Parts: sequence; C-alpha cells; structure tokens
Amino acid sequence: MLRWCHKIVEIVVLRLGHRASRDKRVTSHVCLVARAFGASEVIIAGDEDPTIESTVKKIVERWGGNFKVSFTQNPLAVINEWKRRGGIVIHLTMYGVNLPDIIKDIKASPKPKMVIVGAEKVPREIYDVADYNVAIGNQPHSEIAALAITLDRLMDSLWSRISFNNAKLKIIPSLRGKKVKYIR
Amino acid sequence: MLRWCHKIVEIVVLRLGHRASRDKRVTSHVCLVARAFGASEVIIAGDEDPTIESTVKKIVERWGGNFKVSFTQNPLAVINEWKRRGGIVIHLTMYGVNLPDIIKDIKASPKPKMVIVGAEKVPREIYDVADYNVAIGNQPHSEIAALAITLDRLMDSLWSRISFNNAKLKIIPSLRGKKVKYIR
Repeated sequence: MLRWCHKIVEIVVLRLGHRASRDKRVTSHVCLVARAFGASEVIIAGDEDPTIESTVKKIVERWGGNFKVSFTQNPLAVINEWKRRGGIVIHLTMYGVNLPDIIKDIKASPKPKMVIVGAEKVPREIYDVADYNVAIGNQPHSEIAALAITLDRLMDSLWSRISFNNAKLKIIPSLRGKKVKYIR
Repeated sequence: MLRWCHKIVEIVVLRLGHRASRDKRVTSHVCLVARAFGASEVIIAGDEDPTIESTVKKIVERWGGNFKVSFTQNPLAVINEWKRRGGIVIHLTMYGVNLPDIIKDIKASPKPKMVIVGAEKVPREIYDVADYNVAIGNQPHSEIAALAITLDRLMDSLWSRISFNNAKLKIIPSLRGKKVKYIR
C-alpha cells in the first residue's frame, strides 16, 4: 500500500467514505479525474481496497506520471496535518457557496490545496474544519463532476494540455477513430 | 417506463452500454449531472433498470424540473432519428479532438445537440455516425467528468445559476453547514 507522502504538493484530493462493496467504480473515477485534471494524489478515507490501487497503478504504468493513491482511517488527522503545514482545505458540497462566487478568493492564495469530495453523508466536522465549503451548483449531482469542474477552474483547464512523463502510449487526437502512438 | 419524447430539445444525453449489475451508480451520476448541468433528458442504451428511473424520479420530485430518463435497445436508430430531425451528435471519447479545439464550431450551430457518453467499449459505428468525436483531454478518466465539462462549456456554466420549476426544497448557499428552504 502506498502511504501518504508528506511533501507539499499543489492539489491533493481527499475522498471521504469509500466502501469497497459499493463505491469501487465511483472512487476509481474520482482517482482518474484527479490525475487527468492535474492533482497529484488521492487519499481515500475508508475501506482499503486493492482494486482501486491496482486500477490506478495500471493507468500510471501505461499513461505515465507519478500519481499516487493511499488510504487513511483518520481523515480529520490528515486534514489537520495539511492545515498545520500551511495548506488550505476546500470541501465540495451542494450546500456550499457557489464556486463562481468564491473562486477568485481561492485562487488568490498560492498555498497548496486539498479538495475534499464525500460520499453520501459527510460529518459535520468536515464542514467546520474546511476553509471553504464550495458548491458546484446547488443541485444534487456527482462528486466526480464536482471535482472535475473544481480542478478545471483551479488549474485553468490544465486537462486540455496535460502530459505525463514515462507514458507508454499517447493519443493522437482525431475526428474519427482511434489513433494511438506507442512510445518505446 | 418513460418513452423517448420526440420533441426537439436543446441537449439530450445518450448513455451507451448500461449493465444493471455493474453500472448503476455511474449511470445515476450521468443522469444527475445531465439534469444539474442543463440537459433535458438521458436515453440509456442497455439494461432497463428500474432503480435508475426511481433515483431520477425522486430527484425530480424533490428538486423540480421536467428531466426525463428512458431506455432503448437500439441506440443507432435513436441517433439516426435525431440526425434526421436536424440534430447534431457529439460523441465524447478520449480519442477525439480536444474540446477547446472544436467548441467554437459546435457552439456556432443553433441545432439541438445529442451528447453521447459510453461505457468501456464503444462500437466503431458510433465514431462514424457522430458529427463530432470530442475528447475532454486525451487521458483516461470518467464519462461523468467528460459530460460535466462538455455541458459546462456548451451551456456557458448554466449549472451555476440553474433553477427548476416545482422544486420542494432549495439550498441557500452558505460557507458553513446546511441551509435548506422548504417550498410549499
């Protein structure tokens, strides 16, 4: 299992409430979106789930980069440690302040950012400990979508031009079909 | 079961390849994102799955609007009918042309749009029949994230100001906690 690495990184994602029986695919999507949209790691608070680690590992082996996933049983300790080290904490919730109303404030800070995405029920302490409780619209939808839009805005659409070291293959964008370049 | 309604709507989503045993939650997220980001309906090509219908129905009852979900066993017929009626078809795939390179062309057309999101393996015919094969970055991630970003761009961030008729409750955005207004 990978451990949470205590170096400061620009954006990490904390996924709250993973249950291996139910959340496997949604949590996998959270991890892949985090990577493709420019975050450096996901910390999962919940069941330790080797299939998530294996999915992420396979993606990194083929598509490159240093993206990491790890698990914790104590998300509040992880959050408090992040804050103690000078990071800011953004909790995505449909009850929060709408992203367009707060994004300038958040982006004005050069501090590393932790973006928290929850499963269905998020404990009250998370709302209290977060520097920002932020909504991607105030309708129920998806933490995967909320994370994508947040990273899109925080990283100025980095997803559209991101590239990763040590990739074994690369897509050549095309209007029809699938063009893939294999890299030795 | 709801049937596909043949009126012209601005954006509909076609979800390819739903398997009730495996895709329940991901397809639910696709539906909720479609609604919250301004599409009017999702057509699901795959297993007829009453739990998806029930999830969407509950959301619409509480949160308002006229969002619809239906199922088809013949997605190509649905696509061809859409095109015959003057709609354009955008297939989201990591192999496609990157969204920022094509969005102006797509938005220049006033025609109603069908956005197709697939499960893992999408048949070649879909690439051929689509007017646009579009990538939200050329890295593997999530059809939920891809749909959110696409609708965000196509509808000019409508998600941040959308409201629905006949909602029973409404969130009052707040920096801490949960504020909900119940509407009689």
